Amino acid sequence: MKNDEVMNIAKKRGFLWSSFEIYAGVAGFFDYGPLGAVLKNKIMNKWRNYYVVREGFYEIESPTIMPEEALKASGHVDHFSDPMTECKDCLEVFRADHVIKETIGSDVEGLDNDELSTILSDEQICCPRCGGHLTHVWSYNLMFQTLIGAKGKKTGYMRPETAQGIFIPFKRLLRFYRNKLPFGVVQLGKAYRNEISPRQGVIRLREFTQAEVEIFVDPRDKTHPRFQDVALDTLTLYSAENQSHETGLIKLSAGEAVKEGVISSEMLTYQLCLAGRFLKDLGVPEEVIRFRQHLPSEMAHYAIDCWDVEVETDRYGWIEIIGIADRTDFDLKSHSQHSKEDLRVFIEYPEPKTIKKMVAKPQMSKFGPLFKGDAPKILKALQDVDASQIAESFEENEMYEIGVGGEFYKLIPDLVDFQEVEETVRGEKIFPHVIEPSYGIDRIIYSVLLHCYQEDGDRTLLHLPADIAPVEVNVFPLVNKGPLPEIAIKIKDQMRADGFMAEYDSSGTIGRRYARSDEIGVPFAVTVDHRTMEDNTITIRNRDDSNQVRIPVEDVYQVIDDLIKLKIKFEDLETNQGS
Amino acid sequence: MKNDEVMNIAKKRGFLWSSFEIYAGVAGFFDYGPLGAVLKNKIMNKWRNYYVVREGFYEIESPTIMPEEALKASGHVDHFSDPMTECKDCLEVFRADHVIKETIGSDVEGLDNDELSTILSDEQICCPRCGGHLTHVWSYNLMFQTLIGAKGKKTGYMRPETAQGIFIPFKRLLRFYRNKLPFGVVQLGKAYRNEISPRQGVIRLREFTQAEVEIFVDPRDKTHPRFQDVALDTLTLYSAENQSHETGLIKLSAGEAVKEGVISSEMLTYQLCLAGRFLKDLGVPEEVIRFRQHLPSEMAHYAIDCWDVEVETDRYGWIEIIGIADRTDFDLKSHSQHSKEDLRVFIEYPEPKTIKKMVAKPQMSKFGPLFKGDAPKILKALQDVDASQIAESFEENEMYEIGVGGEFYKLIPDLVDFQEVEETVRGEKIFPHVIEPSYGIDRIIYSVLLHCYQEDGDRTLLHLPADIAPVEVNVFPLVNKGPLPEIAIKIKDQMRADGFMAEYDSSGTIGRRYARSDEIGVPFAVTVDHRTMEDNTITIRNRDDSNQVRIPVEDVYQVIDDLIKLKIKFEDLETNQGS
Repeated sequence: MKNDEVMNIAKKRGFLWSSFEIYAGVAGFFDYGPLGAVLKNKIMNKWRNYYVVREGFYEIESPTIMPEEALKASGHVDHFSDPMTECKDCLEVFRADHVIKETIGSDVEGLDNDELSTILSDEQICCPRCGGHLTHVWSYNLMFQTLIGAKGKKTGYMRPETAQGIFIPFKRLLRFYRNKLPFGVVQLGKAYRNEISPRQGVIRLREFTQAEVEIFVDPRDKTHPRFQDVALDTLTLYSAENQSHETGLIKLSAGEAVKEGVISSEMLTYQLCLAGRFLKDLGVPEEVIRFRQHLPSEMAHYAIDCWDVEVETDRYGWIEIIGIADRTDFDLKSHSQHSKEDLRVFIEYPEPKTIKKMVAKPQMSKFGPLFKGDAPKILKALQDVDASQIAESFEENEMYEIGVGGEFYKLIPDLVDFQEVEETVRGEKIFPHVIEPSYGIDRIIYSVLLHCYQEDGDRTLLHLPADIAPVEVNVFPLVNKGPLPEIAIKIKDQMRADGFMAEYDSSGTIGRRYARSDEIGVPFAVTVDHRTMEDNTITIRNRDDSNQVRIPVEDVYQVIDDLIKLKIKFEDLETNQGS
Repeated sequence: MKNDEVMNIAKKRGFLWSSFEIYAGVAGFFDYGPLGAVLKNKIMNKWRNYYVVREGFYEIESPTIMPEEALKASGHVDHFSDPMTECKDCLEVFRADHVIKETIGSDVEGLDNDELSTILSDEQICCPRCGGHLTHVWSYNLMFQTLIGAKGKKTGYMRPETAQGIFIPFKRLLRFYRNKLPFGVVQLGKAYRNEISPRQGVIRLREFTQAEVEIFVDPRDKTHPRFQDVALDTLTLYSAENQSHETGLIKLSAGEAVKEGVISSEMLTYQLCLAGRFLKDLGVPEEVIRFRQHLPSEMAHYAIDCWDVEVETDRYGWIEIIGIADRTDFDLKSHSQHSKEDLRVFIEYPEPKTIKKMVAKPQMSKFGPLFKGDAPKILKALQDVDASQIAESFEENEMYEIGVGGEFYKLIPDLVDFQEVEETVRGEKIFPHVIEPSYGIDRIIYSVLLHCYQEDGDRTLLHLPADIAPVEVNVFPLVNKGPLPEIAIKIKDQMRADGFMAEYDSSGTIGRRYARSDEIGVPFAVTVDHRTMEDNTITIRNRDDSNQVRIPVEDVYQVIDDLIKLKIKFEDLETNQGS
């Protein structure tokens, strides 16, 4: 299986390995090794170039430890959980939905604990390990809990997602963007899920890296000002309807998808297109990418539309690597309620509006005699009541009852006059809606390694795009003696000084060195040979087709720079040489 | 105070603010805002360019959650603690050493809990908050604890430093570097300290970012192959001797410091020089940097030599921002013992050595009759005993007692012959020593902001080096009407497409826009004015001296690129224009 070969090379050559191996390991944790960490940084910087530089969405960085209040507001304390069951005999714990799926093949997404317990007992599902009895299903919260401070009284959690760190300082971010919608903010960083029993390599980690984007938009305008830039992108869609009717995938242009209402807005569609472009730029081929819409049963109640970007794998089938959702105003509203801070945005009308409004004018002279000392507080309370509410109550009940500090007072129509006044309104306060693309960086790296891996005859190669390859260029002396090694080392040193990840290797035959180089995806190799001594030229070898061109030594730095930054293609060099 | 002005701008303009403000905040946590996160990334990438690209030390990334075994081995479970005391009256907790220092001014570093308790009671030190009685001092572990897995039986901690993540997979790293010393590995990432009562802004955080380097060297060779590259760097040193004798700072070249034995090795000195260069490249002036050696009382028992790189601040005095230590073989040895994995490195001799060795030859024929069925296991056990040990025991006691699975057997000289044999040895296995530079990224960012902040007449400016400024260039139309805005926006868009952090601003007078731009440290401003319409030129304004040069629009992209990457200086443009 390709998965096994890739993970084997990844471990052997220093991309990825299980953490804490000398302490027998802990499931759900991986190290990025020397090549893996560079690859990860390059992918994250490329992502920043997409979102921070080109889209103009600034990045922020908030703590990974969060206080309980904030995660209470986000819903994670109450709802970020998996259905768990325990074996009464061997005491092993399992995810109830996984056990059911593995045993009888049913997808039980969206069912509650009682329903799952019923299935376990009706279907007589036993412990997958020892065949024992399974308990009733309960909810197991997936956050890692800790205590903040010396007195240990403040509960904290490792954040389950980076997104919340953007909602909490929303007022500061709004001010940074000068109080204007739309704007976007991103966060890249660690997130945590204390998985019950993670057994799927880097696909299900307890500690993982996310790159999340929150785009705050006016709920009444989800068009995108640059939609024409993506309108012709082709999207392979697996809509909720396609899934329900089992009609397979459809290919639509982004423009058509919006026009036909398959995707709910331009804002959302634009993000699907960016995600698709990003993956293709990383070397993940279009034919293994699809966009799957959430079924109504799996979508959060507040969301309008959600799409997963999925990549096909031989080991795990289609896996979600990016989620893109229109979350409406759920998050900001919820933090507003819990924190008592007004997180709404004032949106100015194009022109001030004059509106007519009914106001209640109390007959001051009648209040004193009737309510005595209570009159001032009743009059004050009256200011906060909507006049139309009073008028309505007068109509229906001939009186209006007003509550003031626990006491109730009856007002009769005689006590209040109504007046219609004109008021000029400059705008209104609203909760913005949120479009959220959420990237799983570890799964993206896995997809890149998997789909860039190729066996080509005897050769094993990692077909990484030149601008994300961890080692950018290898410099080889053709033979490991005479003056060639010194020249090669000098070229390597100069490249390092210029900022390139260049390596020197003189061990073994040149063929063996090319093979090692291909296996970790080094896109170019510079070879110093005997002709270098005569005419001061070297050869550059292209990883993907093993072709070589010969150029003067003094040109090699600029040529490698242009190749790595994708400013020129290797074929251009070949053409030039031919001419 | 400069600290307060800088932190005020940092909060107002989006560099840094306290986290979780809408939930009343949690001490010891800060957010990096939109400008702060870009600054931080740029500083970290510059650091990577120093260490990963130029020094050739690959980066790895290991989990922030670590299992207890690993931190037991590193000593953190037992020793990563602060001395704590509680007020019996108001129940507030304090760091005992801090309370003593603040009350009677004594530095009590290195004293144990009983000694601290005695000082508290002898000096009649009371609760700083309510004046109540303080309890005996106890050790409070500073790690955030959590539980890993569904059954909650595995204790984990948030890592107290990134370094441990490098020691644990040491065998894999050694293999990556083809089993050759010296080599270096770095890790950048979050580390955690559950501080008792952090009240010093970003100086004392509960969650912070480190960049650590572990350089594994042969203990017998701590010279540095490229020491001559730094030998002339001047270091402002505050050695242990200078501190003890209160003789102030001394300035030495790196070469002299090694020659005079002030710093223990070239390897260590080279790292001090790199740290100094790095800080200067970030705009921290030389006169606020010093290298302070640890006093024998504050240095870990296993360390040979430790230096803190300190920066002077108006609010906190001299603060440690980088620590550089020769930790010997402590870490690898300790993990070796706890994990039972051999973490030694085989070092080949330049030439194989022939050594003479005594071996014990049992007289096989005599063992059987004497020990019967136990003979084979005694003979086997004998193979693992050093012959010289047996000979010595024979000399002293006329016999040697050998333990085999709990039983003891007496061997008399008659049973064993001794022979001297020659053996060829290719090399030996040793634990490498570790040189560890450890950078506190948050404190570095604070130092950069503090020391780049300048008030220049009416002007407030952040004198950030062009290559770390979060916004790289502002594009302004001179007036906000007519054709100028559109041209300016086009230039800004092109710069974004080219990968620059460019912003457009048309609000307020041009003077006000320059002021806002200077305050956040934008190094260059491009202004589109009426002359642009005539001759297609724009002006570039230099933040630091407000000088301007006029150049053709088509040149602006390359010129800004060269300025930001420090390939040219602004003065070069002025000179060119003058000529």
